[in-house]
Amino acid sequence: FAANEMAPHMAEWDQKEMFPVEAMRKAAQLGFGGIYVNPDVGGSGLSRLDTSIIFEALSTGCVSTTAYISIHNMCAWMIDTFGNNEQREKFCPDLCAMQKFASYCLTEPGSGSDAASLLTSAKLQGDHYILNGSKAFISGGGDTDVYVVMCRTGGKGPKGISCLVVEKGTPGLSFGKKEKKVGWNSQPTRAVIFEDCAVPVTNLLGAEGEGFIIAMKGLNGGRINIASCSLGAAHASVLLARDHMCVRKQFGETLSNSQFLQFKLAEMATKLVASRLLVRQAAVALQEGRPDAVSLCSMAKLFVTDECFSICNQALQIYGGYGYLKDYAVQQYVRDIRVHQILEATILQQE
Amino acid sequence: FAANEMAPHMAEWDQKEMFPVEAMRKAAQLGFGGIYVNPDVGGSGLSRLDTSIIFEALSTGCVSTTAYISIHNMCAWMIDTFGNNEQREKFCPDLCAMQKFASYCLTEPGSGSDAASLLTSAKLQGDHYILNGSKAFISGGGDTDVYVVMCRTGGKGPKGISCLVVEKGTPGLSFGKKEKKVGWNSQPTRAVIFEDCAVPVTNLLGAEGEGFIIAMKGLNGGRINIASCSLGAAHASVLLARDHMCVRKQFGETLSNSQFLQFKLAEMATKLVASRLLVRQAAVALQEGRPDAVSLCSMAKLFVTDECFSICNQALQIYGGYGYLKDYAVQQYVRDIRVHQILEATILQQE
Amino acid sequence: FAANEMAPHMAEWDQKEMFPVEAMRKAAQLGFGGIYVNPDVGGSGLSRLDTSIIFEALSTGCVSTTAYISIHNMCAWMIDTFGNNEQREKFCPDLCAMQKFASYCLTEPGSGSDAASLLTSAKLQGDHYILNGSKAFISGGGDTDVYVVMCRTGGKGPKGISCLVVEKGTPGLSFGKKEKKVGWNSQPTRAVIFEDCAVPVTNLLGAEGEGFIIAMKGLNGGRINIASCSLGAAHASVLLARDHMCVRKQFGETLSNSQFLQFKLAEMATKLVASRLLVRQAAVALQEGRPDAVSLCSMAKLFVTDECFSICNQALQIYGGYGYLKDYAVQQYVRDIRVHQILEATILQQE
Amino acid sequence: FAANEMAPHMAEWDQKEMFPVEAMRKAAQLGFGGIYVNPDVGGSGLSRLDTSIIFEALSTGCVSTTAYISIHNMCAWMIDTFGNNEQREKFCPDLCAMQKFASYCLTEPGSGSDAASLLTSAKLQGDHYILNGSKAFISGGGDTDVYVVMCRTGGKGPKGISCLVVEKGTPGLSFGKKEKKVGWNSQPTRAVIFEDCAVPVTNLLGAEGEGFIIAMKGLNGGRINIASCSLGAAHASVLLARDHMCVRKQFGETLSNSQFLQFKLAEMATKLVASRLLVRQAAVALQEGRPDAVSLCSMAKLFVTDECFSICNQALQIYGGYGYLKDYAVQQYVRDIRVHQILEATILQQE
Repeated sequence: FAANEMAPHMAEWDQKEMFPVEAMRKAAQLGFGGIYVNPDVGGSGLSRLDTSIIFEALSTGCVSTTAYISIHNMCAWMIDTFGNNEQREKFCPDLCAMQKFASYCLTEPGSGSDAASLLTSAKLQGDHYILNGSKAFISGGGDTDVYVVMCRTGGKGPKGISCLVVEKGTPGLSFGKKEKKVGWNSQPTRAVIFEDCAVPVTNLLGAEGEGFIIAMKGLNGGRINIASCSLGAAHASVLLARDHMCVRKQFGETLSNSQFLQFKLAEMATKLVASRLLVRQAAVALQEGRPDAVSLCSMAKLFVTDECFSICNQALQIYGGYGYLKDYAVQQYVRDIRVHQILEATILQQE
Repeated sequence: FAANEMAPHMAEWDQKEMFPVEAMRKAAQLGFGGIYVNPDVGGSGLSRLDTSIIFEALSTGCVSTTAYISIHNMCAWMIDTFGNNEQREKFCPDLCAMQKFASYCLTEPGSGSDAASLLTSAKLQGDHYILNGSKAFISGGGDTDVYVVMCRTGGKGPKGISCLVVEKGTPGLSFGKKEKKVGWNSQPTRAVIFEDCAVPVTNLLGAEGEGFIIAMKGLNGGRINIASCSLGAAHASVLLARDHMCVRKQFGETLSNSQFLQFKLAEMATKLVASRLLVRQAAVALQEGRPDAVSLCSMAKLFVTDECFSICNQALQIYGGYGYLKDYAVQQYVRDIRVHQILEATILQQE
Repeated sequence: FAANEMAPHMAEWDQKEMFPVEAMRKAAQLGFGGIYVNPDVGGSGLSRLDTSIIFEALSTGCVSTTAYISIHNMCAWMIDTFGNNEQREKFCPDLCAMQKFASYCLTEPGSGSDAASLLTSAKLQGDHYILNGSKAFISGGGDTDVYVVMCRTGGKGPKGISCLVVEKGTPGLSFGKKEKKVGWNSQPTRAVIFEDCAVPVTNLLGAEGEGFIIAMKGLNGGRINIASCSLGAAHASVLLARDHMCVRKQFGETLSNSQFLQFKLAEMATKLVASRLLVRQAAVALQEGRPDAVSLCSMAKLFVTDECFSICNQALQIYGGYGYLKDYAVQQYVRDIRVHQILEATILQQE
Repeated sequence: FAANEMAPHMAEWDQKEMFPVEAMRKAAQLGFGGIYVNPDVGGSGLSRLDTSIIFEALSTGCVSTTAYISIHNMCAWMIDTFGNNEQREKFCPDLCAMQKFASYCLTEPGSGSDAASLLTSAKLQGDHYILNGSKAFISGGGDTDVYVVMCRTGGKGPKGISCLVVEKGTPGLSFGKKEKKVGWNSQPTRAVIFEDCAVPVTNLLGAEGEGFIIAMKGLNGGRINIASCSLGAAHASVLLARDHMCVRKQFGETLSNSQFLQFKLAEMATKLVASRLLVRQAAVALQEGRPDAVSLCSMAKLFVTDECFSICNQALQIYGGYGYLKDYAVQQYVRDIRVHQILEATILQQE
C-alpha cells in the first residue's frame, strides 16, 4: 500500500500541501483508521506491536501522512478506551473508517507540551462546558471533524484537567492561519481557538480531572507511533542510499566501492536495527502493561527520533547535490522527520 | 546592510524563490560585487580575510543570497586573476557593479565536483571553440550573464582542461528546468547545456590546459567563502536561540533557566568561535600564499560547514515547534547551509 | 556470584595482575566453564542468549576475568562442535571444569585479525604437524593448558588454514614476555611461539582446510560474548554514576539535582537498553541459525562496544576526580572495555 | 628538550610512578620554572602565548610531568603577581629554579572545584593563622615544598576566602596516602591535611578576602595551560598514528591505503588545528586583558580537552591491539589527558 498508494504522491502532497483524504480513506479500508481500536466500534483490534510495524511500513510511503494517521489513531483509541458506550458508538465507527478525521489538542502557545500548566478553560454552565483559550500546532486543525481537547475544568496542576470532544461546526470554534512548515506538509497545521465555545457535557471523556491521565496514556502510544514513523523514513533512506551508491560514479568508480561510504552505510544500518529493536520492545511492554513501559516509550522516542534523523541526513549526504533537490525523496524524509525530535520533547524532559 | 536590506526579505526570497537582483546591486554599491578583485577594473581590492568577514556578516541577512554573491565574486576574481587585460576590462567592471551576474560551471551530471574527469568538450574551429556537454547544479544558471566554464580542450585528465567565458545569448547555450531545492531558494539552479555552442577564442582564460589549475585556485577561496556563509548563519542562530530562551516559558520558568539548555548554548558558542578562528586562519594563509593554505582551506570547509550546520540545527531544536515554522528564520538557516556540507565535498575527499 | 566472588577482588586482580584461577574454578562449578558446550562432555548445554546474559552478569564483577572466561568457553565450544568424539572426550570435561584453561590463537604480529593471510605453518611429517610461526596478543598465553591454533597447512588464502589443538608442554612451544596493558590485567597476554613444534595429527579439529570456517563460526559467538561483557561494565557504571550523583554534593546541592546530569544519565540508560536489545537479538539469531545472524553479530559487536565504552567513560566523568582514582571501580570498567572496541575490528571491516 | 630529556623516560616515570625532579630542574635551566613570572625574581617574563606553546611542546615528551610543571608555574605566578616584594623575593627565585616545588591547594574532598564553598578555616591568632581542614587531589602533594592554599578567613561565600603560602615542615601539615591513578603518574597526588597548622601572617598573599579573586585569575591561565598540555598529547598522537599507518599492514596493504583511515586522520588533524587556534586566541586575549578573555579561556578548556582526548583515543584505535600495550606511547597520552576533561570542570559549569 505504501509503495503503490502513497510513495508516488508524497512529493506532490508535500509541494502542494495537500491533505490526502482519499488516500487515507483507502488506508482505512485496510483497517488503518483504528488499528488498536476495539472491533465492536469498527477498529482492527491489533496490538501495539502490530501498530508500530504498520506505521513503519506506511511511513516509507509518506512520513507526514502516516504521522497524521497515527495521531488520528491515537484520538480514536482515546475515545474507545476512556469513552462510555454512547461516545464510542457515536465517534469511533466514523473515525475508524476515516469518514471523519480527528485532531489532538494538547499544546498551547505559551507552554509547549507542558500539559500540567495548560490554560484553556472549560466552565460548566448547565449541560454545557464553555471553552475559552487556544491550542497551537494542531495537526489536521481546520480540516478535521473531531477535536480531542485537554482543558481545565478545575484548579491548577494536572488534577484540574479534563478531556472534551469538540465537533467541527460548534459555535465558538475557529482556526488560525495554515502554518508554513519545513516538512509535514501533507497535514495542515493550525491554531485551534475557543471563544465561548459551548460543548455538551456528554462529550466529556472519562470523569472531570482525568484529562491529564488520559493525555499521558495516549502519549505513551503516541511516542511509539512517532518513533515508528521515523523508522520507516530511515529504512527507506538506507535503501535509497545503497541504491544510489551502486549507480553513481565518482572518480571513475561507483560510490559503492568507497570504503568510507561502505562503513557509513554499515553504521547507518546498525543504528536502524538498534532503533527498531527499541521501538518494538517498547511496543510489547506497553501492550503487556509492564512497569517499565513508560520508560521504554520515552527512551524509544528519544533515541529513535534522533538516530533516524541522523540516518536520513547521512543518506542525503551520500546523495550529494541530488540529495538537496526536491526531485529525490531523501530530502523529504529528512525534512519530515525533523519535527519528530521536537514533538513531546518537553514532556520527556519533565519525567 | 545585512540587517536592513537582506534580513527583512530573506523569508520572502526563499518562499517565492526570488533572485534579488536589486538588493545585490545595492550590495555592489558598497563594493561587494568584486571584493577581492583589483580596483583598476572596479574591484574593492580587499584581502581574503576582509572578504570572509564581509560574507559572514552578509549571510546573517540571507545565506542563500550571500552564497550566490560569493560565487559571483569568485568568478570575477578568476577573470581578474587569470584573464588578460582585454578580458579583465571587458568583464570585470560590469561584474563588480553587478550590472552583470556570473555563474561558475564546473560540476557535471555524472561526475560531481570531480573536475579532472569532466566531459564537456571544446573543439577549436577557426577562431571559436565549439562546446558540447552539460553542467549541473549551476547557481544562477539561466538568470546570469557570464558563465565561467571548465571544459576539455585536450586529452584525458586534469591537463586537458581549459577555462572559457561564455556569454548569455551565445547560440547553442541553453538551460534546464529550474530545480526545486530544500534551501538556497533565492538563487536559481539550473543545468547549463552546450550544443555546438561557438565561443570566441578570445574568451579563453589563461592558456589551454590551465583550466584545472584555475579551478583549484578558485576553489580555495570558494571554500573559505562558503565556510564564511556558514559562520554567519550559525552566529545568527546562536543569537536567535539565546533570545528565544530568554522569552519562552516552559514549566513555569523561562528556558534560559534550564541548566541543560545553558550548557547547550555554551557549547554552540564555543564551536562557533572555534569555527571562526579556523576560517580566519585559512583566509590569512591563502592571502599570504603560505604552503599550508590549501590544507587549511580544506580543513576550514570540512570542519566549519559541519559544525555550523549542527549549531543551527541545535538552535532549531531549542526553538521547539516554532523552529519548524517558516515564520521563524532559524529553519531557513538550517535549510540553506545544509548544502554547504555537500558542495565540493568530493574534491576534498580526493586530496 | 559476580558480586560476591569477583567484584570484591577486581581491583586487586587488576593492580597485581593476577590470573584468578580459583575464582574461575568456582565459576566452573556453576557451569560457567562450558556454558554452550554439550552436557555429555561436561558442558551446561545452554543457549547463546543464556550465555550472553551470564557474561553480562559476570562482567559486572570483573570485565577482564569474564572476557577471559568467554574466550575459554569459545575454545571449549570449538572442540565440542568441530572435534570428533575422542577429541571432545579428551579436552572438554577438563575445560568445562576449568581444571584446564584454553587460549585461542588466531592473531599474528603482522596481520591483526586478518585470518586469511596468516603465516604460521603446519607441515605434515608422518603423524605429526610441525608448527612454525608466532601468535600475538594471546589471552591466557603462557598460563593456560590448551591452545586452539589456526595455522596454514595448505596454500594461500582462507582454504589453506587448519585448526590444531596444541597442549602446553609440547616441545617447541614457548611464550613471549607478559605484556603490560591498559586494562584486561587479570588475564595474562603473551605471544605464543612455535619452533618446530610437533603436534599429533589426532589434534586436528575438523578436516584440513576447515580452519577458517571454524574461526569465523567461533568469532560470531565471540563477538556476542565480548559485547555482553561490555554490557555488564556499562550496566555497572550506570548504577555507580547514579549512586554517586545521589551522594556527592556540589555548589550546595547533590549532583542528582543537576538537570544536565539527569539528562546525561537518562541518555546513558537509553543507550544501554538499546545495546542490550541488539546483543540479545544477535544471540537469538545465532542460536536459531538465522541467515542474518552474522550481520547481527557484527552489528552488535560494533555498536555495543562503542556505546558501552562511551557510557562507562561518561560515568567516569560524572565521578569527577574520584573517577580517575584506582580506589573507584568506574575507571577499571573504562580501561577494561576499551580493548573490546579493538578486538576483531579488522575482521568486521573486511566483511 | 621534550624529545631528548622527557620522551625517553615517560613510560618509566608512569609505570614506576616517579616524580622526575632532576629532569624538571633541567627544564628550569631553560627558564621553564617560571615562564610567565617576572625576570627580577628569576622568571622568564614571557607571554601567555609563549607559555602555551612551551607547554604544548613539552607535553609531547610527557603530559603528566608537563601538567605538573604548569601547576608549579601557576603557583609561582600567583606569588609573583599577588605577593609583596618580601614574598616574591623569598619564594620566586627558588621556584623559578625548581630548587623548590609548589602545589596548588584549592579543591576539597566534599566540594570539587567549587571554590566559593570551601571549608578549610584559617583563624587569626596573634601573628599566625591557624589552619584546619583538608584539600584533596593535590598535585605534588607531599613531595613539594610550597603550598598555595585557599582557606576561609571570613564568612561564607567567595568574599571570606584568603590565600596563604604554607611551607613544608610547618607543624600541623600532613599528607594522605599517595593515590593510585589511571594516569598522571609522574606527579604524586595526595590529600593535604591541616591540623592546627600555624602559618605566619606574612605568608598571606594579597589582602584577606582576596583569595577567591586570586584563585579565579590563576585558573584562567591554568585552563590555557592544561589545554596546551592536551594539544601536545594530541599532536604527538596524530604523528604516531600517521607513522603507524605507514608501517602496519593489514589485508596485504599498509593501513595508509585505507580510505577510511585517511579520512579519520584528516579529521583528527583538522580538530587538532581548530583546538590549537582556540588555545592561542585565548592566550592572546588573556595576555592583553581583553574582556572576552575569561570566556575564551573557558571555551578553550572545554573544547580542547574534549577534542584532544578524542584525537588520542582515535589514535589508539588506529594502533589496534598495540595501542593497548604499555610499550607504545599512545595509550599513555590517552590515560594522561583523560583527567584534563575533569579538572576545573565544575567551575566552568558555574560560570
